[in-house]
Amino acid sequence: MKNGRHRQFARYVAPLCITRGKGFRLADFDPADTAGLKSADKAEAKEALARGVEWLTEQQDMLYAQDHWAVLLVFQAMDAAGKDSTIKHVTSGINPQGCSVTSFKQPSSEELDHDYLWRYMRNVPARGQIGIFNRSYYEEVLVVKVHQELLQRQKLHPSLVTRDIWKERYADIVNYERYLVRNGVLVLKFFLHLSRGEQKRRFLERLDNPAKNWKFSTADVAERAHWDEYQQAYEEAIRHTATPQAPWYVIPADNKWFTRLAVATAIVEAIGGLQLHYPVMGPAARRDLARARAQLAAGRRAGR
Amino acid sequence: MKNGRHRQFARYVAPLCITRGKGFRLADFDPADTAGLKSADKAEAKEALARGVEWLTEQQDMLYAQDHWAVLLVFQAMDAAGKDSTIKHVTSGINPQGCSVTSFKQPSSEELDHDYLWRYMRNVPARGQIGIFNRSYYEEVLVVKVHQELLQRQKLHPSLVTRDIWKERYADIVNYERYLVRNGVLVLKFFLHLSRGEQKRRFLERLDNPAKNWKFSTADVAERAHWDEYQQAYEEAIRHTATPQAPWYVIPADNKWFTRLAVATAIVEAIGGLQLHYPVMGPAARRDLARARAQLAAGRRAGR
Repeated sequence: MKNGRHRQFARYVAPLCITRGKGFRLADFDPADTAGLKSADKAEAKEALARGVEWLTEQQDMLYAQDHWAVLLVFQAMDAAGKDSTIKHVTSGINPQGCSVTSFKQPSSEELDHDYLWRYMRNVPARGQIGIFNRSYYEEVLVVKVHQELLQRQKLHPSLVTRDIWKERYADIVNYERYLVRNGVLVLKFFLHLSRGEQKRRFLERLDNPAKNWKFSTADVAERAHWDEYQQAYEEAIRHTATPQAPWYVIPADNKWFTRLAVATAIVEAIGGLQLHYPVMGPAARRDLARARAQLAAGRRAGR
Repeated sequence: MKNGRHRQFARYVAPLCITRGKGFRLADFDPADTAGLKSADKAEAKEALARGVEWLTEQQDMLYAQDHWAVLLVFQAMDAAGKDSTIKHVTSGINPQGCSVTSFKQPSSEELDHDYLWRYMRNVPARGQIGIFNRSYYEEVLVVKVHQELLQRQKLHPSLVTRDIWKERYADIVNYERYLVRNGVLVLKFFLHLSRGEQKRRFLERLDNPAKNWKFSTADVAERAHWDEYQQAYEEAIRHTATPQAPWYVIPADNKWFTRLAVATAIVEAIGGLQLHYPVMGPAARRDLARARAQLAAGRRAGR
């Protein structure tokens, strides 16, 4: 996987990684960008994605064997940006025993009765596991910020709903992520950055193509009316929560082939940094294995 | 409850509340202190405790009805300091539907595979509930600090086990508690402060009294050998985690009758600060109730 071509993709993708949110502007990122790759490179991109997924599959096996680290991949985006299909393409092939996807939809009343991070914290992956959040605790500073009536449903006492509430939430999220990283969770956050025009095109396709009708909800069009508020909420969230320990990746999402390659490349780079390997046996453990081998072999001779 | 005698107890108990850890010294607190109350006051203390529990029972009902706040009571102590019996005396009478006690024993392998706060976060009480932690995430900077081999079992990668690990844990705990408080959880932490001599006396009683034998474990005596390390770990933990939003109460524990009264008084004072009340109905809600009443009455006349 880590051949010259991957190195080249990795160099393309590197500037998409935001490790310091201050001054971040979404306008500096073009949703249609393909980092110099052309449509003609699509086949090669597909091939590179396949190699990336293969490499990830091997890494996941070592992650599981080593049992030191967990990987948390957070996916956030506007509707139709391709979260589901990106997750599908990047993770297919990985052993489901070591990888789980949690999709966060509307909170249940039990979940609303708890502190807002509660339902996410419960689902953070265990050591040896890759956990994927399809939407995440970031919704608490995105949809809840755009639709403040949702905050009402969280039943906070009015004295706690101050004008600092969003800054408090950003800070609490940063603190929580720092804690996770200190305890062996690799946290990577992906914002699939879609343009308004491309969203319209994809919605129309869902309406016109009977096989895609099920993906369309009339609520999606209503949400589209809040486009600018959402973009601003994303920008603010990334500004306050992009850190060296838990970076955001702003992935251009107007071209699905590029989105997938960029996400896979970023994950490969980050997991590569963990330098995973199968557990190395010490002399004592090797002696135990040799003894077990001798017992088994003796049993075989004795017909046991 | 909130009569003159309670005010007097509250004044006694106030200095036991540590809201700023810096410079805290356990040696400044006498485990045998009874805040000026004498053995002759025992009956009165018992009576005051009963009134406190009654008041708490009423408050818990309002907490549940109002559904804005949760209460988390954390109990930590050396063996035989009276955690279980204090919890029993302070909470008996409270509706179990609105109150739960979680005792944290040795972590399971599923729990060890997660970040260390995971098993505690899952059990934080929901709005409207009183949650009691019999031992808590503080064990992660107490028993795990005294017996560092337990840290091994948490399977952290060696690169994460630095000499800053305890400071990191204190900071992460403070951050988590601040987050809980911002989200409507009242966090009160009780250290039942027992003297070494009184622990010995209670252990001997457990050995000599057949009805108390079951409470004794030979491991308790082994832990006693680490007395000074534990006292130091408690002092350090309180220094780093006593904050205005989530105070520690250092409760003298050599006299059980006083321990119970002091804990109950502290809880009454803190919950009193929430100024709980039953939800007040607005005009529209009152009209709805009037309509429901009329429908019910009409049904009664029609025999329905």
